[in-house]
Amino acid sequence: MQKYVVRNIPRPAPDILEAYRELDVSTVYEAQGKQGLMHPYLRPLIPGSRISGPAVTVICPAGDNLMIHAAIEVCRPGDVLVVTTIGDSDHGMVGELIVRALMKRGVQGLVIDSGIRDSAVIRELGFPVWSKAIHSMGTTKNRGGWVNAPASCAGVLVNPGDLILADDDGVVVVRRGDLASSLEAARKRIEKEEGTRKKIDNGELSVDFYGLRETLRDEQVVYYDDLSDVPEN
Amino acid sequence: MQKYVVRNIPRPAPDILEAYRELDVSTVYEAQGKQGLMHPYLRPLIPGSRISGPAVTVICPAGDNLMIHAAIEVCRPGDVLVVTTIGDSDHGMVGELIVRALMKRGVQGLVIDSGIRDSAVIRELGFPVWSKAIHSMGTTKNRGGWVNAPASCAGVLVNPGDLILADDDGVVVVRRGDLASSLEAARKRIEKEEGTRKKIDNGELSVDFYGLRETLRDEQVVYYDDLSDVPEN
Amino acid sequence: MQKYVVRNIPRPAPDILEAYRELDVSTVYEAQGKQGLMHPYLRPLIPGSRISGPAVTVICPAGDNLMIHAAIEVCRPGDVLVVTTIGDSDHGMVGELIVRALMKRGVQGLVIDSGIRDSAVIRELGFPVWSKAIHSMGTTKNRGGWVNAPASCAGVLVNPGDLILADDDGVVVVRRGDLASSLEAARKRIEKEEGTRKKIDNGELSVDFYGLRETLRDEQVVYYDDLSDVPEN
Amino acid sequence: MQKYVVRNIPRPAPDILEAYRELDVSTVYEAQGKQGLMHPYLRPLIPGSRISGPAVTVICPAGDNLMIHAAIEVCRPGDVLVVTTIGDSDHGMVGELIVRALMKRGVQGLVIDSGIRDSAVIRELGFPVWSKAIHSMGTTKNRGGWVNAPASCAGVLVNPGDLILADDDGVVVVRRGDLASSLEAARKRIEKEEGTRKKIDNGELSVDFYGLRETLRDEQVVYYDDLSDVPEN
Amino acid sequence: MQKYVVRNIPRPAPDILEAYRELDVSTVYEAQGKQGLMHPYLRPLIPGSRISGPAVTVICPAGDNLMIHAAIEVCRPGDVLVVTTIGDSDHGMVGELIVRALMKRGVQGLVIDSGIRDSAVIRELGFPVWSKAIHSMGTTKNRGGWVNAPASCAGVLVNPGDLILADDDGVVVVRRGDLASSLEAARKRIEKEEGTRKKIDNGELSVDFYGLRETLRDEQVVYYDDLSDVPEN
Amino acid sequence: MQKYVVRNIPRPAPDILEAYRELDVSTVYEAQGKQGLMHPYLRPLIPGSRISGPAVTVICPAGDNLMIHAAIEVCRPGDVLVVTTIGDSDHGMVGELIVRALMKRGVQGLVIDSGIRDSAVIRELGFPVWSKAIHSMGTTKNRGGWVNAPASCAGVLVNPGDLILADDDGVVVVRRGDLASSLEAARKRIEKEEGTRKKIDNGELSVDFYGLRETLRDEQVVYYDDLSDVPEN
Repeated sequence: MQKYVVRNIPRPAPDILEAYRELDVSTVYEAQGKQGLMHPYLRPLIPGSRISGPAVTVICPAGDNLMIHAAIEVCRPGDVLVVTTIGDSDHGMVGELIVRALMKRGVQGLVIDSGIRDSAVIRELGFPVWSKAIHSMGTTKNRGGWVNAPASCAGVLVNPGDLILADDDGVVVVRRGDLASSLEAARKRIEKEEGTRKKIDNGELSVDFYGLRETLRDEQVVYYDDLSDVPEN
Repeated sequence: MQKYVVRNIPRPAPDILEAYRELDVSTVYEAQGKQGLMHPYLRPLIPGSRISGPAVTVICPAGDNLMIHAAIEVCRPGDVLVVTTIGDSDHGMVGELIVRALMKRGVQGLVIDSGIRDSAVIRELGFPVWSKAIHSMGTTKNRGGWVNAPASCAGVLVNPGDLILADDDGVVVVRRGDLASSLEAARKRIEKEEGTRKKIDNGELSVDFYGLRETLRDEQVVYYDDLSDVPEN
Repeated sequence: MQKYVVRNIPRPAPDILEAYRELDVSTVYEAQGKQGLMHPYLRPLIPGSRISGPAVTVICPAGDNLMIHAAIEVCRPGDVLVVTTIGDSDHGMVGELIVRALMKRGVQGLVIDSGIRDSAVIRELGFPVWSKAIHSMGTTKNRGGWVNAPASCAGVLVNPGDLILADDDGVVVVRRGDLASSLEAARKRIEKEEGTRKKIDNGELSVDFYGLRETLRDEQVVYYDDLSDVPEN
Repeated sequence: MQKYVVRNIPRPAPDILEAYRELDVSTVYEAQGKQGLMHPYLRPLIPGSRISGPAVTVICPAGDNLMIHAAIEVCRPGDVLVVTTIGDSDHGMVGELIVRALMKRGVQGLVIDSGIRDSAVIRELGFPVWSKAIHSMGTTKNRGGWVNAPASCAGVLVNPGDLILADDDGVVVVRRGDLASSLEAARKRIEKEEGTRKKIDNGELSVDFYGLRETLRDEQVVYYDDLSDVPEN
Repeated sequence: MQKYVVRNIPRPAPDILEAYRELDVSTVYEAQGKQGLMHPYLRPLIPGSRISGPAVTVICPAGDNLMIHAAIEVCRPGDVLVVTTIGDSDHGMVGELIVRALMKRGVQGLVIDSGIRDSAVIRELGFPVWSKAIHSMGTTKNRGGWVNAPASCAGVLVNPGDLILADDDGVVVVRRGDLASSLEAARKRIEKEEGTRKKIDNGELSVDFYGLRETLRDEQVVYYDDLSDVPEN
Repeated sequence: MQKYVVRNIPRPAPDILEAYRELDVSTVYEAQGKQGLMHPYLRPLIPGSRISGPAVTVICPAGDNLMIHAAIEVCRPGDVLVVTTIGDSDHGMVGELIVRALMKRGVQGLVIDSGIRDSAVIRELGFPVWSKAIHSMGTTKNRGGWVNAPASCAGVLVNPGDLILADDDGVVVVRRGDLASSLEAARKRIEKEEGTRKKIDNGELSVDFYGLRETLRDEQVVYYDDLSDVPEN
């Protein structure tokens, strides 16, 4: 397949990006119908990091980071670099120098279905990264691939310009066509959770306010007062 | 994102499919520039199985196989069902009954980024399967998803109608736009390998006929006659 | 906790054991409400093996098989030895000699949440084994444990005398108190599946005979005729 | 098997729980004869957390947390919730809301052989958790299971009311019948270690004070002064 | 470190190699004091394969097989090629062509701490392989390494000319200096096992002929006649 | 093979050790030709730890730490203890007491291809550790092995006296014979990186200053202005 770089991609409007910044990954994943969640082997380098921005996607052959270098040029402030490989990889594909270059371009963070290195320096620089591994093993930079092609990253299909939201719980992708509806659904969910939080603070039980006692009955769950009341198997 | 089923997909011409049937996964993967190879955790249920056919893709929520049932109807003779899940899964998503239904439709085989069950019966039926797991754990059939949407399967993006080739070495995807060029490249590779095979039969060494002695020199590899000639570290 | 060996355990009636011999693991697991299925990392040494018998349970410290030796004596013809360890282990805890001793006692098979060795000989002897690993690494035989205590094996609680059913799909446990109800449920399931098999042979579709078209509508899955009809993301 | 909730369980006396609070997991595990240690894949969410309390056990079908909701009601101040699943799972079964409800009941902490979500908030709330994964993937709440049944958690059998001790080294279970003897053994071990610590501070060597020089001789370990004294292989 | 190829290595005498051919991996591993066993992730391509020969060692950078090409030339009939990589790898480093070249040189088999490809053809050719993976992913052939240097393979140090023994149980290394003593110890072990086999055939129990009843007493294992005799926890 | 302890080993000169203290793992690994990097499953107990010292190597049978006790005596201030096992292990082989003894001897840190315990105390003591696991599971101390023999640790061969460098990125080994050349190469690399860092600060792009535009052309990567310019697959 023809290898390429696409220079310009559609990006969500700034107010949308801003609105998503208030949201967390678990809420958005649930709100959009349990879709778009990357595999939990992606872990944050810096606990507490949170990012929300449009994806610039990169597909590299495993063990080569040429296309990451090619991607830097097309990044704009606020973007999130999403890197995946053809073939499984845990190389240290991104190190201090590339991170500095990304920060220079105003890139918000990195999601990489492979490894990084110079982790101590990157932590000091405060650059948010979600990766599969920390590994010194280096790459070549001489094999072509794609920038801004549809990419399969940690089990999820990412299109260039999709919104990437990442926090301590993981990474979720919101398709561009779903930005408005997912946002609305997320806000409703938050409101509802606010109500639930109050009920819990008042000492109400979820088996009551979710109506689960009926489900328990339907599922033929019986109650015994003591262990000795349970019949022998 | 809108959930959907697409009833009709473009399929490669019969002679193309036939031509690929002679080829093996490793050759095609190499020939098309080391692309399209699924993760090696997909293993054949029946060693020696070989399939070559267009992908009908299915995306299910992890733990639910409703969309596989929906997919059966749109399959045609010779198709390969490619199933992936939203969220990691090793459920037994496909068992004897679905396999019988697929065979009834003339489906060639199944590639599934999750698990199967009734493995003994499926083996007896001789239906080719590449899966991640064998697991009795069942699924519900009540959650929507997609049939014939672009799918991320075992690390590779599959578009409906792409050619799926699978054998003991694994599973490779050939994009529809690359069918002709990959075929030609694969045939050239086979021809070349035939020549190499003869050289080897004649006792020629690959360091010679590939010109690797020069590479070894460039890489500063030295030759010693005996272990005792190697200088101490 | 006091270490012990219990010499006698209750065993299911011979006709019950016989009846289960016709059933497969996936059916029984489903029939008894999706319970009792061991982790799929247990794999059969000899594909096609099938066993059905009461569990004699053994709990060993990881890396020691003293209690397996102690268990041989309490085994009776038709029993299934279920071995688990305190602490994760993939030692070769059972080899040719123990297998010969078990066969001498009429033991039907072995389910072990650890490893075995002498795998080639055991295969020749035709003794059914489900294990986590094949590994030459030996054990000591000098640390106490339990024979016929409740045991946690591959994620499932096994009580002595519970029925163990194992085939190519894995291993399932039927509690003694559930033997009759699970058998009945399994038979009903088989009957129903027989009906389904006929429908499939007649070319009927599961989306129809399971009434899934309605579920698909409820889940807002839409149908498009062609890929080009799908709206852009 | 009949699904159930047991409302009341025996709990260790407060002074016993208090006494265990001084102890660490490695000491207690050793002191009670190397028993009761859960698999090390359970990791603390908040490094430095330490809990000691009676187990309220929950068994859920993988992917459903109905029974956790049912369990909240039977928890008492100081309890530790121990959650396991039927079938392997890394869903985010517990999030902020359940944690708030558990804290409201005075629950000390959570041990879960599956995943959690809302990890950043839970960390802020300071609620101790040992889990296998952090994962946004949600659950349903409509399938029955057990509260306060014997449960197989991370490879260890836990009975309701058993003492759960957890710290940075992992999670250990003390059976109710062993509370006194394990405590005494642990205290002896600590005393002895205190003596050892002093010997080490004085520069004494463990090969001497443990009498290991003899073991080394028995094991035919020889001493060479220099690398060049070692005979060739 | 200087990269090199050593052309000639010491090889065990033919009668020694012949003698080891009768032995199996588990026996030799035990006989030589539980040493030299490779990690069990190495699995035989062809069940039932057995090899016994001197190691020609190869160390390649992960993802490059130049040094395997260089190694072919120094192999002699009966040798076993032992390949390891610098950095973890599951590439298909060896395929049909290299196997044909190795067979042409009379090489007995391959032990590789990485992957192979063309697995179906290699199986047909009947060439014994123990590998970590089957994977089409190809390598380059342009980076230097070592032939006949000490190599760390699947967790074990292999020196050139060491004896490699492999069967269905795994792979074991016998150091050249230990060939005689390990052989003798293995033969003694086999003799002893022959005696044990007879005792088992006669219905004797290992708890008796190994004297384990005393160990059970020392370990404070008590015997109960029935489950109901076991005191409550 | 004869088990042994070597009392004295060659150690790099103090100024060399000092010089390496300024360097990081990724730089040294690259500088010495991408060699000597241990597997990334070794993780630092205390983020931010950095050590540089000569290796005292220990080889233990899995599950026994007798030889670690034997090793303490031969350690000198500044040494790094490198522990590996015969057979895979994740036991807690080293705890507080051994760490105190190592600190008393002035040992700088521990690299262990297995597990540790008492992790909270070791963290408080500030002793740098790189390990595969944290696990309370204890060991015996009665089986012989080797101190200061060549050892295979986390995939890398370590000779006694080799330099061990470890930081947040992992662990790298520098052979004694390569100390000078690797140091020089590392310094050159750092200098060069300093230049690169400046270029990046000035807004120069790596595709330009590394001359990658030509590579991109050679690799037939084309540029499109917009997603809509990309031809259909």
